[in-house]
Amino acid sequence: MKKLAYGLKSLIILLLIPITIFSQKEVKDLSLMPMPENIQLNDGKFLLDKDFTIVINKNEKKLFDAAYRSIKLITDRSGLFLNNQFPFVQPDAKGKGVVINISEDVELKLGVDETYELVVNEKQIKIDAPNSFGAMHALSTLAQLLDSDEAGYYFPGVTIKDKPRFVWRGLMIDISRHFEPIEVMKRNIDAMAAVKMNVLHWHLTDDHGFRIESKSFPKLHELGSDGFFYTHEQIKDVVNYAYERGIRVVPEFDLPGHATAWVVGYPELASAPGPYVIERMWGIFNPTIDPTNEEVYKFLETFFIEMTELFPDKYWHLGGDENNGKQWNANPKIQEFMKANNLKDNHALQNYFNVRLDKILSKLNKTMVGWYTDEMPDISKDYIVQAWKGRTTLYETAKKGYRSLISHGFYIDLVQSTEYHYNNDPIPPDSILTDEVKERILGGEATMWAEFVGPETIDSRIWPRTAAIAERLWSSGSINNLNNMFNRLDQVSLQLENYGVTHIKNQDMMLRRIANSYDIETLKNFVNAVKPLYTYSRDRPHIAKSYYPMTRIVDIALPDPRSARLFNTSVDELLSNEKINSDCYEKVKSHLETWKENHKNLLPLIKARPILAEVEQLSEDLSKVSLIGLEALELIKENKKADALWITASAEILKTAAVPKGEAELAILSSINKLLAKVN
Amino acid sequence: MKKLAYGLKSLIILLLIPITIFSQKEVKDLSLMPMPENIQLNDGKFLLDKDFTIVINKNEKKLFDAAYRSIKLITDRSGLFLNNQFPFVQPDAKGKGVVINISEDVELKLGVDETYELVVNEKQIKIDAPNSFGAMHALSTLAQLLDSDEAGYYFPGVTIKDKPRFVWRGLMIDISRHFEPIEVMKRNIDAMAAVKMNVLHWHLTDDHGFRIESKSFPKLHELGSDGFFYTHEQIKDVVNYAYERGIRVVPEFDLPGHATAWVVGYPELASAPGPYVIERMWGIFNPTIDPTNEEVYKFLETFFIEMTELFPDKYWHLGGDENNGKQWNANPKIQEFMKANNLKDNHALQNYFNVRLDKILSKLNKTMVGWYTDEMPDISKDYIVQAWKGRTTLYETAKKGYRSLISHGFYIDLVQSTEYHYNNDPIPPDSILTDEVKERILGGEATMWAEFVGPETIDSRIWPRTAAIAERLWSSGSINNLNNMFNRLDQVSLQLENYGVTHIKNQDMMLRRIANSYDIETLKNFVNAVKPLYTYSRDRPHIAKSYYPMTRIVDIALPDPRSARLFNTSVDELLSNEKINSDCYEKVKSHLETWKENHKNLLPLIKARPILAEVEQLSEDLSKVSLIGLEALELIKENKKADALWITASAEILKTAAVPKGEAELAILSSINKLLAKVN
Repeated sequence: MKKLAYGLKSLIILLLIPITIFSQKEVKDLSLMPMPENIQLNDGKFLLDKDFTIVINKNEKKLFDAAYRSIKLITDRSGLFLNNQFPFVQPDAKGKGVVINISEDVELKLGVDETYELVVNEKQIKIDAPNSFGAMHALSTLAQLLDSDEAGYYFPGVTIKDKPRFVWRGLMIDISRHFEPIEVMKRNIDAMAAVKMNVLHWHLTDDHGFRIESKSFPKLHELGSDGFFYTHEQIKDVVNYAYERGIRVVPEFDLPGHATAWVVGYPELASAPGPYVIERMWGIFNPTIDPTNEEVYKFLETFFIEMTELFPDKYWHLGGDENNGKQWNANPKIQEFMKANNLKDNHALQNYFNVRLDKILSKLNKTMVGWYTDEMPDISKDYIVQAWKGRTTLYETAKKGYRSLISHGFYIDLVQSTEYHYNNDPIPPDSILTDEVKERILGGEATMWAEFVGPETIDSRIWPRTAAIAERLWSSGSINNLNNMFNRLDQVSLQLENYGVTHIKNQDMMLRRIANSYDIETLKNFVNAVKPLYTYSRDRPHIAKSYYPMTRIVDIALPDPRSARLFNTSVDELLSNEKINSDCYEKVKSHLETWKENHKNLLPLIKARPILAEVEQLSEDLSKVSLIGLEALELIKENKKADALWITASAEILKTAAVPKGEAELAILSSINKLLAKVN
Repeated sequence: MKKLAYGLKSLIILLLIPITIFSQKEVKDLSLMPMPENIQLNDGKFLLDKDFTIVINKNEKKLFDAAYRSIKLITDRSGLFLNNQFPFVQPDAKGKGVVINISEDVELKLGVDETYELVVNEKQIKIDAPNSFGAMHALSTLAQLLDSDEAGYYFPGVTIKDKPRFVWRGLMIDISRHFEPIEVMKRNIDAMAAVKMNVLHWHLTDDHGFRIESKSFPKLHELGSDGFFYTHEQIKDVVNYAYERGIRVVPEFDLPGHATAWVVGYPELASAPGPYVIERMWGIFNPTIDPTNEEVYKFLETFFIEMTELFPDKYWHLGGDENNGKQWNANPKIQEFMKANNLKDNHALQNYFNVRLDKILSKLNKTMVGWYTDEMPDISKDYIVQAWKGRTTLYETAKKGYRSLISHGFYIDLVQSTEYHYNNDPIPPDSILTDEVKERILGGEATMWAEFVGPETIDSRIWPRTAAIAERLWSSGSINNLNNMFNRLDQVSLQLENYGVTHIKNQDMMLRRIANSYDIETLKNFVNAVKPLYTYSRDRPHIAKSYYPMTRIVDIALPDPRSARLFNTSVDELLSNEKINSDCYEKVKSHLETWKENHKNLLPLIKARPILAEVEQLSEDLSKVSLIGLEALELIKENKKADALWITASAEILKTAAVPKGEAELAILSSINKLLAKVN
């Protein structure tokens, strides 16, 4: 009976498989990211042909342009020769393709209605949204839905009703520590829009560079930037570019600490005499603005007035982090001022400074945003606090009545795993916060600090991991299946290339540079199994200077490399089943065999290119641990245990291999350890 | 005796080989392009270490910046952590590294002294040049010399004395037919400077777009560009960027034909009433400026005055090509004017127009440049003629006393072979021109017409072939060994990636897009054996519109693909020897075996991605002809001939395979034909 039942079950499975394969896709198979709030599959699909077009009910330039870009994305992927490249505007919108109806044109600001409805059926695609910003989100979703089979390109039938969970879904880009040209900003803005992020927080000043032209105080950029700064025209261009994609730009002028680049040109603003030079090392530095100097406030007011012409958004980030207070402690005039004004410590003095700046900003109709400091400034409750030190600070400030953003857990510069960031729910399901407090948590921001990134590498540090963060901030907390997320992320990451981001394509380019060769296969095999060291473990103060090369293996290797993840997933799957899954087995074996042979093939190149010397041992480690993995794999297949001496020797090798080399480490070591554990 | 002699010879060869291998490099092994006029190898080499720096004797910003960029290139490739990122300025220049001495700072203009001397020995690198422009060429040469071995990175010992053969070494980029953003211009300017080109000819207006902001006549760009134009600030930025790299920018405002985009906003300038719309098709079109309308000259003078603020160079291109005369013939007022002014035909009328414009330009201290027309305008001998229709026009105009440029043979948009362009010597050794006439031939320009290129593909249409053109215009005509050129070109092409050009890296990106997959190996195997169809054979008027997708295989395949060239070279080498060269044999066989199996592996992807349907047959062709190649190869190895039936059948398959599909064709077919011929 038992055997028969088993046979019957097999038969049923066999019967089901083809049905599953040929039946309509399931929702989880759609490569959408962030996942919409509500999605239902419809029968049929919308087939693309040369008559495809987009019709909009209102003559709204930014929506028209977005629709134009959507048409281009679709033709680029499908190769279709459409009859019309431009959308149409018709008050009574109809047409063979996408029909967009928006209710009204509104200004982009915090809390703008971003909802949309997207319905795809065989005959038409309908987008309804209260405004252009919602409609543009719908177009991003639509682009992700594009699919193909032998019959042609199509959009699957769906009804999507969507809106964001959080109103503030940001990416902070630090262009002070390393400068990023305008086109880097633009392509990342496009990628942000593709995953429905809506705030670019632009960290424009820090100890390493004052990156924006000032006409009021030209020595700021002339002496504080090494010539790497944005002109007013360029800033306007980028801010407008972002606005047209539904992205608010919040500038950050970090004060009173992180201020070296301000005081290179204007040492009189500092709390110690100077002179100052642009900082070249990483860390927290002394130059700090003098809050007791009335000229400082006049200077900043004039400067802020100049800047308001460039940054229309209501929110204005003034930093406020990591003031070490040394200059204040050492300045008798400041100490006297504190006594006279009953300011008990540096926190109180910084509070005084913030209150003064808050007043200036209020006059300019701007609202202050700042990094969390240990004590909150005693300023208006409008103030938005960006929590970066830990999750509790997020809740504390929200409880105190401030609106808050979370960046803790979203520090993408630390090259942590996608999984870690994805699981960083600002308000987890078990949260005991009151609804009122929850409401004050506006969302969060991924932070791309720039100690170790430049124009060639920044995209690969931002993407694709930030797409997972975008989902965390847009989608329901219940969307949290990791495997499904990774499947969708892989697809969306590919599509991000179409917006110009270089997160995939620059890797081979950088390998060709250091190999000085077209033949990078063995080097790539190696790099695919490697990840950069956790940033805080890198030798920041001693090894790193702002101008050191960012072209080494540590820079080329990807955080959370896809290839290593696929291997690790196969190992997990292999070990999770009692019976060997032969597909998994073959995948694991094939990876291990490639890596086992790789070092001896790579060695001649390592010898010829001294830039690779620092990872010679790591390359050898990869081959050694892969041999261990292979031997364990064979034992697992034969359902045997390993002998104790071999276990001891192998464990020793794995231990040595775990030590980072050249600031990089093996990304597949945990899997080898698991294989070893299985046969122990 | 004979046998002994043979043995002795072998012995001598065996003794010589190691000496050759371990001896110093030969001049031909240096990956320099363009090859310098005079080069000698010195003993020893200059080893790079962390104290490396560049010292300049004069405080000259553009040279300082160029030296900074050189240091960055060197650190990027070597991974060296230098103590100093910035060059030093010392009147009495000395230091551990490069010492640059220039005589004086001069303005960049046609004929500026571009000579330099570069001496590398164990202790120092010395650059001497009359001015910054020569010194920057020396830095480009130095970057190409960077090499490495196990001991470290180094510059080989050399003494180079160098100067250009022609003073005008240009690249024309058409950004009217398809627009190119600023960053595309900049990265190509960097690449131009790397191979010592010195003129960017910027084709700013044509039927398809008026691509520059006009403050005097805003409807020019507002109505004539679809919103794709450069602002004044952007133009200034690019012109300055080029100037700082020793590259003059010559703007082109094409008149009186190719004028559709002018008259969309200002139809009153045209020779027929209008209204006009931006042209979307390719070809020669009717809209032509009315040379009999006095308002036209006022308009153009005002416009030119505005433009002179943006383009400091003395030379000013007014196009003048391909006026079909239809509007002139059909306009009675114009016909009357011609009669009244004794202008016998349209050439005479165009001459009249040119003479009028020449006068305007002279007032503005500009000199006119124009495309060759069948009759030369009767204007000052300062006029520079750009020959594009054929080589004889170059010589004719030079004989008539005009200075001339050659673009015939340098039409890189036609996707012809590198060899063809390289052999296009403006003044071949057998030229019978007098020295006086030869002197009037200033040089030439590669022309990147933009019917079929956009930001993603333009770099791969320009590079690396244009580097070979740069050598043709810089180096002596006696530098013409093809094999050696290709060896150097391959290296220089790799290095061009470091300047940001995307000619290599965008191919995989584009393959991933149409595959919608990371796994592009089989698709790449196919594309590597394919080239785009000769442009004039493409179905220009009917298939192509300005907005059709440029993401198909024809766009992804490279003109003169390196991989196919290496295969073809191996076949040639194999067939040139009586005895089978086993290395060549293995290479040829391995390629053919990969291709033979490729189609069946690629087919599922072709079926899933309809954009590939148009090349399904071509993919099958590749596998079929590779099987023929393999069979022929085996016969060659066995020194046998093929049977006649097989020859006939194979020839038929090859004939079918020669028919282009999807506007692409096999790049390896001639080699298969050669293999077949060998066994026939």
